[in-house]
Amino acid sequence: MHIDELDTPVPVVDLDIVEHNLAKMQAYCDAHGLALRPHIKTHKIPSFAHRQVELGAKGITCQKLGEAEVMIDAGLDDILISYPLVGATKADRLAALSRRAKLRVGVDSKLAVETVAAAARASNVPIGILVEFDSGNARTGVTSVDEALALAIQIEKTPGLRFDGLMTYPSTDATAAFVAEARQRFAQAGIEIAVVSGGGTPSAWHAHQIAGLTEVRVGTYIYQDRATVAAGAAELDECALHVHATVISRPTPDRAVIDAGSKSLSSDRVDPAAGTGYGLIRGYEDAVIERLNEEHGVIDVSRCSKKPEIGERIRILPNHVCVVSNLHDEVALMRDGILVDTRRVEARGKTR
Amino acid sequence: MHIDELDTPVPVVDLDIVEHNLAKMQAYCDAHGLALRPHIKTHKIPSFAHRQVELGAKGITCQKLGEAEVMIDAGLDDILISYPLVGATKADRLAALSRRAKLRVGVDSKLAVETVAAAARASNVPIGILVEFDSGNARTGVTSVDEALALAIQIEKTPGLRFDGLMTYPSTDATAAFVAEARQRFAQAGIEIAVVSGGGTPSAWHAHQIAGLTEVRVGTYIYQDRATVAAGAAELDECALHVHATVISRPTPDRAVIDAGSKSLSSDRVDPAAGTGYGLIRGYEDAVIERLNEEHGVIDVSRCSKKPEIGERIRILPNHVCVVSNLHDEVALMRDGILVDTRRVEARGKTR
Repeated sequence: MHIDELDTPVPVVDLDIVEHNLAKMQAYCDAHGLALRPHIKTHKIPSFAHRQVELGAKGITCQKLGEAEVMIDAGLDDILISYPLVGATKADRLAALSRRAKLRVGVDSKLAVETVAAAARASNVPIGILVEFDSGNARTGVTSVDEALALAIQIEKTPGLRFDGLMTYPSTDATAAFVAEARQRFAQAGIEIAVVSGGGTPSAWHAHQIAGLTEVRVGTYIYQDRATVAAGAAELDECALHVHATVISRPTPDRAVIDAGSKSLSSDRVDPAAGTGYGLIRGYEDAVIERLNEEHGVIDVSRCSKKPEIGERIRILPNHVCVVSNLHDEVALMRDGILVDTRRVEARGKTR
Repeated sequence: MHIDELDTPVPVVDLDIVEHNLAKMQAYCDAHGLALRPHIKTHKIPSFAHRQVELGAKGITCQKLGEAEVMIDAGLDDILISYPLVGATKADRLAALSRRAKLRVGVDSKLAVETVAAAARASNVPIGILVEFDSGNARTGVTSVDEALALAIQIEKTPGLRFDGLMTYPSTDATAAFVAEARQRFAQAGIEIAVVSGGGTPSAWHAHQIAGLTEVRVGTYIYQDRATVAAGAAELDECALHVHATVISRPTPDRAVIDAGSKSLSSDRVDPAAGTGYGLIRGYEDAVIERLNEEHGVIDVSRCSKKPEIGERIRILPNHVCVVSNLHDEVALMRDGILVDTRRVEARGKTR
């Protein structure tokens, strides 16, 4: 079946581009002696995670326990949960998983360390820990080497926990400075930093320039999107996922309406420097998806020399592909325009 | 189980408030002789649709065929699809549904009329049509009475189709003017306008002031949200759905990070006049959820006299509840803080 026969709106993944993107990132990491630990939050599909490992990834990264549960059920066995887990319920779930796979968890507080410690006690399986530090993003992560060292000491003293190193997101110039100071201070304290894990597709190709980094966590690179293209991390023809939609109304000469709205494309914007609107329409680059309602996309076609007609199918490159993938139960897989398979987005909606 | 024992993030629905909201809207419509045809796009849960009908709703509204399929599978039997369907695949699916339920479809183009006609031919079941007109929203809908009349004449001439009237979204002052002109012109042409269907919760309580309206399509009113409160359509204590989240990090005195990001709360904003940030934290109204990543919510707590602590649970009123509901596989149902049941969001992700 040609993919143009699929009902719309539908996310369509080009498998040749996926394969190119996975191989290219693995080759980059191999060339620079960096471990690649792909983040599955973008695709949320076990078969893609297996392919990443097959190509050389050291293991995978999950943000939430629910994602890790899906991946472990599917046979993935080496997982970093790059997210602070806090509380008894999380400890119980982590304990159950620690019996089934090699786990490592990112923490940035005493309470998160205690949560992982409770899990390790319950399962009687040691769990590795990375201490998260802030490289300027002002999200999670400790903001000083003093705090990182205090947590590392707490971890080293706690039975069942293993201090494995540091992590941050995203990798920036500030990362190297923090790591340099940490290596010196931790060495004085007799604590080894085996792993320094950095993240983010937009800056991924600069990872080898960040002194001290040992591991790269990237998610978006499998599909790429308008934001990573804008960041210079991908070319347009390296974008693997497009949402195919249909023009369902042309109420005025300058307006087209499509059957994809915020429930198909999300409301995520891109930096104004990267472009306007809620996605880039391939072949109609002068069109602007200027407004999304839940199931409608309202497009200004006034600047288009040729304008899309009612009934016509269009292909949209999402602004931010990770949240788009998370809106759909399954993706269509194609090669050369022919549908070859579909995949359930199995970890979709696993926010806990 | 107390709802505070549920793992987070989790959407929690207060059933007493739902019942209040459903009864209040039904009473309003009854008092003014308006038919109520609730839009299920907000809750996407068949049992709530059945309750709406039980309380007096004339039938339900769906935006997409996929939503209608779920509702018909669950026994709902009178459905308006308030959305232009275009193309052969949609016609096939519509034909299948028309054998199972009483259907009406909104159209705004010849091609959409032809799509419904193809369905009626295939199923040999007559299908009702409403012609959609634009009340100033500049989305779908014809922009003149001339166009509406031309479509009505096309519909009347087409075997298997039944012209039932007009629809618009949202209902505005422009609605009444359009309807008045249409009633006159259609009467001259000998075409009866049986139904005039208007939509939108924000303006719902003004529906009786819009001359000519016969039917109210509203969705958000079941849960209400920050946007409908800002519009004056609901009080804060009429908001039925909150996302419960946990503070997972307090990296600095002025910053708290929660385990709910854009994959739990969506990136939908509200009008700046309605407030800042990605939702309102109940009990911490001075806190601002200033940034969402996929699984992180970054909160500025600098203006809070009492600040939420790490491990603490908070309740967030979403900006736009319809897209939030669509992110979650299920919602927890509670009364007086006690979990009484859960419901699958069965039509979640049904964008086709």
